[in-house]
Amino acid sequence: MSRIEIRLSGLGGQGIILAAYILGKAAALHDHKHATMTQNYGPESRGGACSGQVILSDAPVSYPHLTQPNIVVAMSQEALAKYSGDLVDGGLLLIDEDMVQLDRAPRGRVFAIPATRIAEKELGRKMVANIVMLGFLAALDQSVSADALRLAVRESVPKGTEDFNIQAFERGYVYGESRIEKEKESV
Amino acid sequence: MSRIEIRLSGLGGQGIILAAYILGKAAALHDHKHATMTQNYGPESRGGACSGQVILSDAPVSYPHLTQPNIVVAMSQEALAKYSGDLVDGGLLLIDEDMVQLDRAPRGRVFAIPATRIAEKELGRKMVANIVMLGFLAALDQSVSADALRLAVRESVPKGTEDFNIQAFERGYVYGESRIEKEKESV
Repeated sequence: MSRIEIRLSGLGGQGIILAAYILGKAAALHDHKHATMTQNYGPESRGGACSGQVILSDAPVSYPHLTQPNIVVAMSQEALAKYSGDLVDGGLLLIDEDMVQLDRAPRGRVFAIPATRIAEKELGRKMVANIVMLGFLAALDQSVSADALRLAVRESVPKGTEDFNIQAFERGYVYGESRIEKEKESV
Repeated sequence: MSRIEIRLSGLGGQGIILAAYILGKAAALHDHKHATMTQNYGPESRGGACSGQVILSDAPVSYPHLTQPNIVVAMSQEALAKYSGDLVDGGLLLIDEDMVQLDRAPRGRVFAIPATRIAEKELGRKMVANIVMLGFLAALDQSVSADALRLAVRESVPKGTEDFNIQAFERGYVYGESRIEKEKESV
């Protein structure tokens, strides 16, 4: 890895920025890489699409502006439209399948998870959909190690909710692993 | 204002990133400007100096990398050494006077406040030193309005601590106003 650019996007209130913060923290504190996280405010902060950009590198990040993401996570339709167009060819596009309909052939490899549904129906709290999605990402891409992410999740969520959030993470992780199995079988 | 770059810096644990987040949020949501906030992780995340960069603009911020800050806030000695060297000539340097000794002539105009001491001795909680410093900044520079900051503070701090944090903000604000008065008198 020299430089990996990851964009998390969705609706304000889905915990997108927290997820981006955790991703950067996991890489920097526990995987000992260099990382920056940039969040944009703007009209999107008033309820529309929002995004957090994380840049990971083996060397200090002197240019924290995302140029072309290797990975895009989209948790809402508007976020997909606004933030996935510049995905690198062959990159990874992760979507919440209940929140997002693909309306054209994607540029990258797509993996879908009903993260919000899992959070709401299986875990009982919609607000951990972001952490379910982080677990899903950890299974599908190893730019940041799953163990680093587990530590960063524990450190970053409100006190008393650590175990619950880890449960959400593991649920997404297992779901991601099952997607990989399916893909192998279908080859 | 076309573009204003503000760097908040200090020790990990001082709430620097939260303060930077609040500053960007205030500008974007309540002053209706465009804003980005970038945080670096790295060795500094493991206890040393940390910084959050906020860029404010009347137009969308296409280049979120801080080039030369107009304002630097330093809440620790290491942060001053590491993050204040590129302050624009005539810029604003705000320091916590108990945490930072100026060891050379500064490039900008310096204003000092014992933010940590005020938080600890007067308000009883050291952890609001970051909000005291935001109030101080609001009095000395109007790039982000004080009212926008008050709203963003309320929205961003843990539930139940809103009034206390606003009290911290006002304490810093009044202190900043008194500094301006003193400067006028000495002219």
